[in-house]
Amino acid sequence: MTGYRPARIAALRDELAVEDLDALLVNHLPNVRWLTGFSGTSALVIVTALDVVLLTDFRYATQIEEEVGGAARTIIVEESLWTGLWELLATLPAAKRVGFDSAHLVHRDFQRLLEQGNRWQWRPTADIVERLRERKDQSEVAAIRRAIGMAESALSMTLESLAPGLTETQLAGMLEKALRDAGSEEYPFPTIVASGERSALPHARAGDRRLATGDFVLIDFGAVADGYCSDITRTVVLGKATAEQREVYDIVREANARAAGSVRAGMKGMDADAVAREYIHARGFGEAFGHSLGHGIGLEVHEAPRLAKTADALLCVGAVVTIEPGIYRPGWGGIRIEDDVLLTEQGSIILTGFRRDLLEIS
Amino acid sequence: MTGYRPARIAALRDELAVEDLDALLVNHLPNVRWLTGFSGTSALVIVTALDVVLLTDFRYATQIEEEVGGAARTIIVEESLWTGLWELLATLPAAKRVGFDSAHLVHRDFQRLLEQGNRWQWRPTADIVERLRERKDQSEVAAIRRAIGMAESALSMTLESLAPGLTETQLAGMLEKALRDAGSEEYPFPTIVASGERSALPHARAGDRRLATGDFVLIDFGAVADGYCSDITRTVVLGKATAEQREVYDIVREANARAAGSVRAGMKGMDADAVAREYIHARGFGEAFGHSLGHGIGLEVHEAPRLAKTADALLCVGAVVTIEPGIYRPGWGGIRIEDDVLLTEQGSIILTGFRRDLLEIS
Repeated sequence: MTGYRPARIAALRDELAVEDLDALLVNHLPNVRWLTGFSGTSALVIVTALDVVLLTDFRYATQIEEEVGGAARTIIVEESLWTGLWELLATLPAAKRVGFDSAHLVHRDFQRLLEQGNRWQWRPTADIVERLRERKDQSEVAAIRRAIGMAESALSMTLESLAPGLTETQLAGMLEKALRDAGSEEYPFPTIVASGERSALPHARAGDRRLATGDFVLIDFGAVADGYCSDITRTVVLGKATAEQREVYDIVREANARAAGSVRAGMKGMDADAVAREYIHARGFGEAFGHSLGHGIGLEVHEAPRLAKTADALLCVGAVVTIEPGIYRPGWGGIRIEDDVLLTEQGSIILTGFRRDLLEIS
Repeated sequence: MTGYRPARIAALRDELAVEDLDALLVNHLPNVRWLTGFSGTSALVIVTALDVVLLTDFRYATQIEEEVGGAARTIIVEESLWTGLWELLATLPAAKRVGFDSAHLVHRDFQRLLEQGNRWQWRPTADIVERLRERKDQSEVAAIRRAIGMAESALSMTLESLAPGLTETQLAGMLEKALRDAGSEEYPFPTIVASGERSALPHARAGDRRLATGDFVLIDFGAVADGYCSDITRTVVLGKATAEQREVYDIVREANARAAGSVRAGMKGMDADAVAREYIHARGFGEAFGHSLGHGIGLEVHEAPRLAKTADALLCVGAVVTIEPGIYRPGWGGIRIEDDVLLTEQGSIILTGFRRDLLEIS
């Protein structure tokens, strides 16, 4: 997944022409990685009509050769990235109007542009690279599929050991070890293991609560392969489910199935969201589904597009999105079922295959 | 570690008076947590002479009551945090000059202040809360000590299973499971397991390289307890060390011992850095120690103060800093030995106790 990516750079140059920019300053690290392959934590990239230049520091001198190859000219800065940037721009006389990413440049660095970088005309831009990243190419889909495979095999192994008395944190550790054994490079976000009443907290992490018979156990986690994330949630019951647990679970399962089965390139994110939301509402739990239906995944675990009540952008071919409806009842518990779906010209493909019926673990 | 923290709010109010501000907008989440106890991922806080108000969204309605208690007035916003902010500020007539954090507010949100928030006078500030966070109180030091205990017990267990043929990723998984079993809430940063030649990469992560006899295995990791991080590195040899491995190791060990033994509140970060750097330079490896000596740890694994060539600020009582000299020789391997040190009125205390002699694992 490294090296020269002419199609990505070409697509970005088209956008620069549309926005009447001579160059773009890229400082958001996932955007840096998508354009150049570089996965380090210190970098600035300048893209012009002719050049792609990556600035980083000493620590990455070896890594940058392996990862970037011919994708960019690379400069190891002596002092700071910013000093390196002024020196670089001075060698690129055609770069006068330079875009920067308004969502990722902090005010302090914006002040640097206005003060030390005042020889150039700085233009705020919004999500130029993020929009390009929405449309995954084959290699990206393949990496996401690998990350899903790692997550599903780790979940299978972990559910075999699920038992009353374990803490949520211990269960998270078992799952994470299985993810590592499956080859996951890291964790795309802090693993959520929320049991019993805590499953009603939509953003609980793993805590020291011990699993008990009768609990819902909500597990939301992912793997990373070649930098690309998977994101999956399953909710199981420890022991026998009550009729009420089963009834509410089946509402979430049906909402998941309807949304995952109907999400398509060309529809709006808000319309996909509505499929699940209206079903849950009609079944009487509208207030209990307080978050959005889903989000894109890729080099980041939350990226474009959004599937939410207010998302009026059209979903594009090549996007990989999560479908994750939930019902959360304080004091009782919560259920979320999350799958990853690829939008193609020929319709959508549910990439996650892990079973969705209510598992009773005993 | 939750709830009312009058000393922290009082210290911040003193700073606001010095800076002639009526209020401070806090958007950096570790600063939010330090001031209010709230650990969620969506929040804005306003602190004035009389009020502390925390804005968050629906997802955290339950969590916020448990975590914040009386530390802040809490508001669950209907729409966005920003809309909630304008509404809140309109109810605080004394708040005219409002500071924001220049290092943490992105340009897009700065534009919101200038446009939608143009009824108020916005003043950039630098690291006001971060400077207060440098000086840990007893409860914070206790949490860091717990996080160190978790890390050290996990490392002990993991070294017992270290063997040729394991991949770096598998070893990371074993270590992380042991961290979870010890109670770690999450991982403060992606675990580094770098073996053989890869140990010469100062910022390698864990990869699919298999450990082999004769390798240096560099392990840099930490635990989290009540939100507070530990950060420790040990480098071991798989099998018998060569004379050259032992010689270079002992230089790093001595540099670590000299710096950890001499770092004190009241000295400059650059002077602590120089203790290790000059020793390594005198032994002929100056070029091979390219990064800084260390950094503060707390709610973030990299926070103030810095211990670096250019750090001219005085180190304060209550800071907890890492001491992590290293020598990296491309193609041969690298060594880093990292400890966590508390600076007190009575001198410094090395909090990490894990043995520092060269372990030969067989």
